[in-house]
Amino acid sequence: MDLTAYLKSRQRLIDRALDRFLPKETAAPPTIHKAMRYSLFAGGKRLRPILCLAAAEGCRGKATAALPSACAMECIHTYSLVHDDLPSMDNDDFRRGRATCHKVFGDGIAVLAGDALLTVAFEIAARTRPTRRYSMAEILREIAVAAGSRKLIAGQVADLEAEGKKVSRDELRYIHENKTSAMITTSIRLGAMSANADAKKLRALTKFGYSLGLAFQVIDDILDVTQTTEKLGKSAGKDVAAQKATYPAVIGIDASRAEARRLTKNAQSALKIFGGEAEPLRELANYLLAREY
Amino acid sequence: MDLTAYLKSRQRLIDRALDRFLPKETAAPPTIHKAMRYSLFAGGKRLRPILCLAAAEGCRGKATAALPSACAMECIHTYSLVHDDLPSMDNDDFRRGRATCHKVFGDGIAVLAGDALLTVAFEIAARTRPTRRYSMAEILREIAVAAGSRKLIAGQVADLEAEGKKVSRDELRYIHENKTSAMITTSIRLGAMSANADAKKLRALTKFGYSLGLAFQVIDDILDVTQTTEKLGKSAGKDVAAQKATYPAVIGIDASRAEARRLTKNAQSALKIFGGEAEPLRELANYLLAREY
Repeated sequence: MDLTAYLKSRQRLIDRALDRFLPKETAAPPTIHKAMRYSLFAGGKRLRPILCLAAAEGCRGKATAALPSACAMECIHTYSLVHDDLPSMDNDDFRRGRATCHKVFGDGIAVLAGDALLTVAFEIAARTRPTRRYSMAEILREIAVAAGSRKLIAGQVADLEAEGKKVSRDELRYIHENKTSAMITTSIRLGAMSANADAKKLRALTKFGYSLGLAFQVIDDILDVTQTTEKLGKSAGKDVAAQKATYPAVIGIDASRAEARRLTKNAQSALKIFGGEAEPLRELANYLLAREY
Repeated sequence: MDLTAYLKSRQRLIDRALDRFLPKETAAPPTIHKAMRYSLFAGGKRLRPILCLAAAEGCRGKATAALPSACAMECIHTYSLVHDDLPSMDNDDFRRGRATCHKVFGDGIAVLAGDALLTVAFEIAARTRPTRRYSMAEILREIAVAAGSRKLIAGQVADLEAEGKKVSRDELRYIHENKTSAMITTSIRLGAMSANADAKKLRALTKFGYSLGLAFQVIDDILDVTQTTEKLGKSAGKDVAAQKATYPAVIGIDASRAEARRLTKNAQSALKIFGGEAEPLRELANYLLAREY
């Protein structure tokens, strides 16, 4: 399959849906809707929503049925970046190749824009059609738990608290599991749920998401060390400067690369109960690993 | 009826439910759960959840059926205060009689604690039982819209942008409608929805909530001018100091008092289709107006 064409067409589908689901830039008060859209349409890779759609198709469902969940997860991901970049958090001026939300709109509006993106995610999620196996309450709980204080936010707290300290490999794993892997796993699970996937398939995709999410973060850590700011679209070398807990810092670059390969292999083997319908998921996993080079 | 005893028993019911619905303080990572609970259990009046339960009973439903919605709204209200108090917003050190969340836990954790309270609100909302007339998707949308960028957050943005400027009475009304009245109206509507209220009752309670919410904010503005910090439990005179848009500033104290009375009367007359089952709602409206003296 032509992965580049696939990614492009998926990004377009998701961008159009996000544009439809979000209040217009001119809706009152314009400041907040400009700020929300500034961060949401900043050229993100749309990895989480693409995985969501691919998981739906991997379970022989329709991509369009997974669109509300996919867009909800992208809004949550974007809100977490907006808040993460604030001066009181990572204090980053540069994201996805341009000035961060608070640099353009001020700290107060950036806090509110993040809040609004998180809130609109649930409004968008309400558009999901429940299936025979998965009720709206279950879909809602799935999203809220992944984004909540025991997953995504737990990871951010642990990350914040680890700064400048020596962390163990286990502590680092905890941060990655919660900060990155949980949101990726849930994106994939929501896609499967939109396709009314049975328990066996949901379990397999949960394993796939877990390993893929960890692999993704390990590779991200490596890229922060090896790539330029220009290429990353965000400040390179920031992790080192902020004494962040990263794989290269804890186990070295070579061992990190081996770990990324091992995790990607685990992800691939979780997919073995699927046939050709999971080809996009397999290709996506290899594509993410290839970013390393 | 004995309103004091009623309020006390309702506060206890809500506090116990919130305690049950929230992760324990010891849940990992403890910092975030301590911060969430610090702000949530700071002795708030529980006005919004009490109104939610009273509306359920006003529609001959059970208070317990409205508890998840009621608690979700209280979590959202508390998150909005935590973020509103941040240095980049209102920069307030004092709330509900004690130091604000960021003064105790730092700005970064306060941002995350607010995020976590907003997120857990939706996890709690997922516990609501849909009724014949109102689906889970409708309940979810009701909450997300009230808390979103066209209501609660719109009011906060307009409030932020009005600081130090001369605002008209219409602009002030816009701020109050969105920042305060929308959340109060939705709390009441959710109570009615949990009781499967028909369209006529829901419409009447929506009118009641709108007027009551505006009256509440006008009175709050008056109290900021006339009361001491000790009595308010938050910094008094802050509105004047920050050149905030308030009713006393725009139309004077006496006209503000008349406006609060007029709005309360409107709220009361919206209840005339109800019998004795709406007595708590009537008493609550009078009680809120009486705070003026």
